[in-house]
Amino acid sequence: MDKLTGIHAVKEALEAWRPIDRIAIAKGRQDTRVEEIVQLARKQGVPVRFEDRGQLDRLANSKDHQGVVALAAARAEASLANANAGHGQLGLIVLLDGVEDPHNLGAIIRTTLAAGAHGVVIPERRAAGLTDTVARASAGALAHLPVAKVTNLVRTMEELKDAGYWLVGLDEQGGENYTEVDYASPVGIVLGSEGQGLHELTRKRCDFVVSLPTTGPIKSLNVSVAAGVVLFEAIRQRNARTRGK
Amino acid sequence: MDKLTGIHAVKEALEAWRPIDRIAIAKGRQDTRVEEIVQLARKQGVPVRFEDRGQLDRLANSKDHQGVVALAAARAEASLANANAGHGQLGLIVLLDGVEDPHNLGAIIRTTLAAGAHGVVIPERRAAGLTDTVARASAGALAHLPVAKVTNLVRTMEELKDAGYWLVGLDEQGGENYTEVDYASPVGIVLGSEGQGLHELTRKRCDFVVSLPTTGPIKSLNVSVAAGVVLFEAIRQRNARTRGK
Repeated sequence: MDKLTGIHAVKEALEAWRPIDRIAIAKGRQDTRVEEIVQLARKQGVPVRFEDRGQLDRLANSKDHQGVVALAAARAEASLANANAGHGQLGLIVLLDGVEDPHNLGAIIRTTLAAGAHGVVIPERRAAGLTDTVARASAGALAHLPVAKVTNLVRTMEELKDAGYWLVGLDEQGGENYTEVDYASPVGIVLGSEGQGLHELTRKRCDFVVSLPTTGPIKSLNVSVAAGVVLFEAIRQRNARTRGK
Repeated sequence: MDKLTGIHAVKEALEAWRPIDRIAIAKGRQDTRVEEIVQLARKQGVPVRFEDRGQLDRLANSKDHQGVVALAAARAEASLANANAGHGQLGLIVLLDGVEDPHNLGAIIRTTLAAGAHGVVIPERRAAGLTDTVARASAGALAHLPVAKVTNLVRTMEELKDAGYWLVGLDEQGGENYTEVDYASPVGIVLGSEGQGLHELTRKRCDFVVSLPTTGPIKSLNVSVAAGVVLFEAIRQRNARTRGK
């Protein structure tokens, strides 16, 4: 559990739709900046309580909190590395190599949560940020799913591999059919940007590069549709295996 | 093969992105309305030839063509009913019970074509029309795939059933997992509108109502993502069967 203290930090976390468990505000603290935080929290369904200042001091473990303290889930970056252990399930994560359309990003976050997968990793640069448009397109899923912004996607891929993940890249040039991969291990599904597919550096880090069996003049799907097809194939295989036991 | 004659009919067909093989224009015919048709045709990659007026008379089998004749694929409505026989393959069609977002409609058309399926059926009313936005979101697929606008979706469902199709409706209340249906027969996949799911009348006509195995607070996917997941499950089953032979 992370503690965020001060008006700026709490407001920033709300604006980034970072998952927050609750917000404590010092009784009597009332101005437009606090009011903004209350509004944002209400919009996202985050509980707000007004508490004694001494209570806030204890919560923040400090007096330097400007009367506003938020309790947030541990940073998404950290929880992703532990997705496997933390959930007591097989890890399933989506890594986006530069998806730029906020509607696509939102739809991918929605699908990832609905599929029961554990998180989405996006690069900090050259990609859609976690805006209101993304939150709306995610149909509320952004508030529930860890979405990790990382500075170096390739490094995150290496870390996931060290943690026992297999990385499956999707690309129209991919050699194997996506249904031929075994999704019974912890898996990271890696998707490229709308126009360009996977970057060379990203592709090289994948354990498999697979494609969807398309026919005719259109060789690729919308990236959010492609994400759904591969995620639910992984779920199908895992469910079939569980039923087989 | 249908023949469309006259400026109005040809322009309307182009604006609806109806698949057109080629357009013949009488030599010497030149004004802004013809120029509009040439522009639209070029934008969609439809070949335009300038021919003698006698040639056009023979093509149109009439002199009443205002110097503009288009050769179009048979109407999508007709080709859908014959998709099974016509393609020498197992029919696979998507029926949309009122999808309203043009981006979703475009993405569904793109996915349907890429999956090698044979057409999309949309209701004439209370649904997105075939606009430029749809064409763009389809990444060009609209020019290649039959998209049938029907006045009565339920009647089309009955016709498809008479033609040997099984109708599989997708709904979050659906009883069976979508992977448990056998897609080895001609299949129509029926999807509801973004907000409401399947209408009661539509649901009743389905042979199966299935759902995706979602977990957590989000119970449904974006409709274009859901379409992709079910379409590619049908393709996966059919390919597995072919390989098994």
